[in-house]
Amino acid sequence: MLGARRLLGALRFCSSVPCPKPRTSAKLRVREALGVLDASGERVTVQGWIRSVRSQKEVLFLHVNDGSSLESLQVVADSSLDSRELGFGSSVEVQGQLVKSQAKKQNVELKAEKIEVIGNCETKVFPIKYKERHPLEFLRQYPHLRCRTNALGSILRVRSEATAAIHSYFKDNGFVHIHTPVITSNDCEGAGELFQVEPSSKIKVPEENFFNVPAFLTVSGQLHLEVMAGAFTQVFTFGPTFRAENSQSRRHLAEFYMVEAEISFLESLQDLMQVMEDLFKAATVMVLSNCSEDVELCHKFVAPGHRDRLEHMLKNNFLIISYTEAVEILNQASQNFTFTPKWGVDLQTEHEKYLVKHCGDIPVFVINYPLALKPFYMRENEDDPQQTEVT
Amino acid sequence: MLGARRLLGALRFCSSVPCPKPRTSAKLRVREALGVLDASGERVTVQGWIRSVRSQKEVLFLHVNDGSSLESLQVVADSSLDSRELGFGSSVEVQGQLVKSQAKKQNVELKAEKIEVIGNCETKVFPIKYKERHPLEFLRQYPHLRCRTNALGSILRVRSEATAAIHSYFKDNGFVHIHTPVITSNDCEGAGELFQVEPSSKIKVPEENFFNVPAFLTVSGQLHLEVMAGAFTQVFTFGPTFRAENSQSRRHLAEFYMVEAEISFLESLQDLMQVMEDLFKAATVMVLSNCSEDVELCHKFVAPGHRDRLEHMLKNNFLIISYTEAVEILNQASQNFTFTPKWGVDLQTEHEKYLVKHCGDIPVFVINYPLALKPFYMRENEDDPQQTEVT
Repeated sequence: MLGARRLLGALRFCSSVPCPKPRTSAKLRVREALGVLDASGERVTVQGWIRSVRSQKEVLFLHVNDGSSLESLQVVADSSLDSRELGFGSSVEVQGQLVKSQAKKQNVELKAEKIEVIGNCETKVFPIKYKERHPLEFLRQYPHLRCRTNALGSILRVRSEATAAIHSYFKDNGFVHIHTPVITSNDCEGAGELFQVEPSSKIKVPEENFFNVPAFLTVSGQLHLEVMAGAFTQVFTFGPTFRAENSQSRRHLAEFYMVEAEISFLESLQDLMQVMEDLFKAATVMVLSNCSEDVELCHKFVAPGHRDRLEHMLKNNFLIISYTEAVEILNQASQNFTFTPKWGVDLQTEHEKYLVKHCGDIPVFVINYPLALKPFYMRENEDDPQQTEVT
Repeated sequence: MLGARRLLGALRFCSSVPCPKPRTSAKLRVREALGVLDASGERVTVQGWIRSVRSQKEVLFLHVNDGSSLESLQVVADSSLDSRELGFGSSVEVQGQLVKSQAKKQNVELKAEKIEVIGNCETKVFPIKYKERHPLEFLRQYPHLRCRTNALGSILRVRSEATAAIHSYFKDNGFVHIHTPVITSNDCEGAGELFQVEPSSKIKVPEENFFNVPAFLTVSGQLHLEVMAGAFTQVFTFGPTFRAENSQSRRHLAEFYMVEAEISFLESLQDLMQVMEDLFKAATVMVLSNCSEDVELCHKFVAPGHRDRLEHMLKNNFLIISYTEAVEILNQASQNFTFTPKWGVDLQTEHEKYLVKHCGDIPVFVINYPLALKPFYMRENEDDPQQTEVT
């Protein structure tokens, strides 16, 4: 085994071999550096991409972002450290001292002692330009670069925090996480909007179907989860779900992530709705506390004014109305709907939007649907099984 | 809006409507009840499935399990509470007092005051039998019931804890979680083992391909993650992955979950391997601290003796050897391999197993592979680009 050490050179084989490039300064993410409250000259190294360059006579200002937060770290350097390669988009490693900033906009800044360009960005051919606010439609052409913009960076950080928050909520509340299958022979909703799965034509398979039966991409893990709730009492899944809907609506992408939970021994529908409300509120609070600025920016780009609505939802109880009540509200509405609301017919998106607005921009649970509108596996109401059913 | 309240009956419309069934006792999961250290007669309600019944002259003993832990809660009741329906597999709600247990096996037991059978299990037709240890091959026939056994229950609890631990590790270490696409036109590994995706025949689609190009199920999120690492520095994904391999090996199911991470600004391969080692160790410690008994049971069923190996791996550093060193070790082995090890040929599972055993049952990273064995996108070694390449 001794031979291995020789072959490895600088690499660790056992713990006695030191790290190849010993550092004299701590490596910090931008988010960590920005979080240092009383900076007093700590020697640190920060790596990231240049978001702005401002060259003055004696001082050079850079903003460096590494994707850990919306905010960039201001780097202040002697103009002698300037170089042609220090342009927008280039990646750099900056060593220096973390100090209190004179400017009001930030707490700390990095007084650079050394700036190394790791990857040079050719500003002229780089599609993302300094100080330009590119429309989302333009950025769509550059899926490999667009996450270096504030808008897309924020969206994905929020999504990442929301994902973590959903896992945390369920774990903290005693739910077992289940990976329900993606490939399944089971068509949960009974709708004909399935993707079918077969080995690609490159593969020669003896059977007609690879899985012996036709196999589809899941539209819901509900039936699998119900079985698991019969063993673990409280279960959830948070996985990819698929619809082969040939439409460009905002409702469903062909592939999207869905949270589903099942609980045994429930005594009332109210308890179930309370779990959904708690999940939404707990996850929202967690996301807001971890990346409030990203949420702010998402709302600015995607849905101005929604941030207030978020606070409004956190402060108020969600509402519950019956299907019959919902139809009554819609029939009394002054708004003209494309689809006239009628008892016995499913609610349309325009109806749902109206109900939410009517109830004061608070999420609304609509319960006691007509039996005929719901799939076979829904539980019938005990008081009126012919007409209504729990959703 | 007042009408809604009338229609809702017992359901909460606003916070002034009380809960339909006010409880006089706290509802506890079995795991929570077992965790009460100094039980002193707290009134609680526990729900779950009966795992054993022992009826004595004056006392009735039940074991109730709700899937929150491997261990069941002992319920002690006056024999007057016994009924024909209190059999193995039935689901019950037990109200009573949590008290210190006389027995050595458990800390607490539930002194029942009321036992309600929620779902009666017909013991004769129920395939899982009391006190029988059913082989996994037998349980395979009952995917909807098998998770009520100790073995399958433990496996899924461990999986759930491991999933949570993986998310925690990456979040705590500043990684952004990315949902890399499941449906993709990108064949990452270049292997011909893909599943192709098209809408099922029920759907009439005008284009020849639904997505305009042939679409497959992902075999790796690596290429998408690499792009994201160019914006967020540290990213990970933990999602379903697919191989249309028509073989029944232990290597890959057709669908399995895979952890992938990408890091920018790395200065050595060693740093990357350290992340993988840290992830494994942190997640293992977390799983062991949350469900040690489940891990024990999994090992007993699936791989006896592996529990010690787990502790062994936690205590020792993982090893790093070069591909050339690995081939040397294999050539000097006394073992006869089905595939003779040879420089320039990929390592087989039997080789990998031998290397791990040779290195003292510690995970081994094999680095510096021949260029020709690796896909086009792998980074070439700087010192010897013709011959070797980083894996």
